[in-house]
Amino acid sequence: MSNTPVTVLGLGDMGRALARALLKAGHRTTVWNRTAAKAEALVAEGALRAETVAEAVAASPLVVVCLLDYDSVRQTLDPVAGALSGTAVANLTSGTPRQAREMAAWAAERGADYLDGGIMAVPPMIATPAAFVLYSGSRSVFETHRAALDALAQSHYLGEDAALAPLQDIALLSGMYGMFSGILHAFALTGSEGIKAADFAPMLQRWLNSMSGAVAGFAAQIDSGDHAQGVVSNLAMQAAAYHHLLEAAEEQGVSPELLAPLGPLMARRVADGHGHEDLSGLVHLLRTRA
Amino acid sequence: MSNTPVTVLGLGDMGRALARALLKAGHRTTVWNRTAAKAEALVAEGALRAETVAEAVAASPLVVVCLLDYDSVRQTLDPVAGALSGTAVANLTSGTPRQAREMAAWAAERGADYLDGGIMAVPPMIATPAAFVLYSGSRSVFETHRAALDALAQSHYLGEDAALAPLQDIALLSGMYGMFSGILHAFALTGSEGIKAADFAPMLQRWLNSMSGAVAGFAAQIDSGDHAQGVVSNLAMQAAAYHHLLEAAEEQGVSPELLAPLGPLMARRVADGHGHEDLSGLVHLLRTRA
Repeated sequence: MSNTPVTVLGLGDMGRALARALLKAGHRTTVWNRTAAKAEALVAEGALRAETVAEAVAASPLVVVCLLDYDSVRQTLDPVAGALSGTAVANLTSGTPRQAREMAAWAAERGADYLDGGIMAVPPMIATPAAFVLYSGSRSVFETHRAALDALAQSHYLGEDAALAPLQDIALLSGMYGMFSGILHAFALTGSEGIKAADFAPMLQRWLNSMSGAVAGFAAQIDSGDHAQGVVSNLAMQAAAYHHLLEAAEEQGVSPELLAPLGPLMARRVADGHGHEDLSGLVHLLRTRA
Repeated sequence: MSNTPVTVLGLGDMGRALARALLKAGHRTTVWNRTAAKAEALVAEGALRAETVAEAVAASPLVVVCLLDYDSVRQTLDPVAGALSGTAVANLTSGTPRQAREMAAWAAERGADYLDGGIMAVPPMIATPAAFVLYSGSRSVFETHRAALDALAQSHYLGEDAALAPLQDIALLSGMYGMFSGILHAFALTGSEGIKAADFAPMLQRWLNSMSGAVAGFAAQIDSGDHAQGVVSNLAMQAAAYHHLLEAAEEQGVSPELLAPLGPLMARRVADGHGHEDLSGLVHLLRTRA
């Protein structure tokens, strides 16, 4: 059985990495980019250059889309909408859950099978074991073209609702940036006494990896709605200690601005009568819709 | 060789856990607390109750202090200051680097050997492999009494400056709270589409443990001052993507308040001409003193 031919629309850093991974895995790979020069290196490596989007879409049963944003996706696919019937579209462009749902509806009206994807990697990680892609939308696109998708990265299918992949993509990135904010603050603190960052880094990383174990307990509390289960250090105590933590930063000449918003959120939750509970109850205060 | 007798001043949840660990390790353990009733269970387990602080301090060559705050430590030790000469004081009370330095100077004037400590554990973790304590100050106290300290938790000695332990304690906790802020935001996002927290938790934990690997790269950039070395996704790109990340949260009915401060900080650093560099350069903006 020969490998499925694949088309890649969009040849930014990520699109080129995807096309290269497909070529290496032995897929006949057709590429298109608005500015054609980006295709040159790939053509030298064996890719076929499509002159038009229509030609690109006609070349393969699977079309992987990796453009700047969802507006670019619509502008690119609109002129060929009539030719999409029966085509499998895997859209790996970064976007929001709402945009993914709208795109799925747009594709469904045109008879295309739509799979949305969130790439959890930077371009150099593509086709390495460290990369994974979250998929949601058409299960049949995912299953039929699993081999091609697995050539890009580890593939995780989350469900039929196209919004699920971008939602969890965004949730993971948000978790990461929270952690990065904590890391920046921690290094500013140790730097305030001239401690080499490299001397402190191993302990910080071990500590974060150990403390990330709290995720499972938070999840159980959130799902049950019982934020008092298994509490060891209650929110009232944590709120008091947190205040001192930020004061100590100021004493060291470190701005507490990245970590500051957690303080008032803890205080609000304690004032609402949840001081005996765990930190996880703060999710309720982050929801702006009932 | 018999185990060193140890005195524990302060029998809150943590103080009691420390005293219990010393008893279990076979140390003659003398305990004192301002309200004496807290000692009862420990006495039943074999601890000796001191009626006064003076009696407690006289009972053992090593005095472990675990009180509410540094003011309590001073109020407790001031009346017996004349009896501290030659005594090893290991102060595990939570405090700031400045407070630790002041206490070390106070102890030195009275001829006491002072070791400061930051406990990286909650009371139920004491004497389990998960607990560790950071120490700084008198190296001779640390080395002479290593066996007793190791009965409490893994012991890490950081240097002669008493401020080093509380500083790194605070830095680790700050890093953790940044990560927790990210975790709370992430669960609020997945909850906005009714995804069970327990279904998302394993992926979130794996992702955070993977992304914590960035610590080493950040450290190298911070120590060298070259924040452009090894950049894969530069700050200008990250700042643009971050803006969309917070917009997507609002679209999902999730307040971006915990993660919001990183946005303006990125924008300031880009405006200052560092858009080609990595996120680690933001530490410079957190330092309020030159």
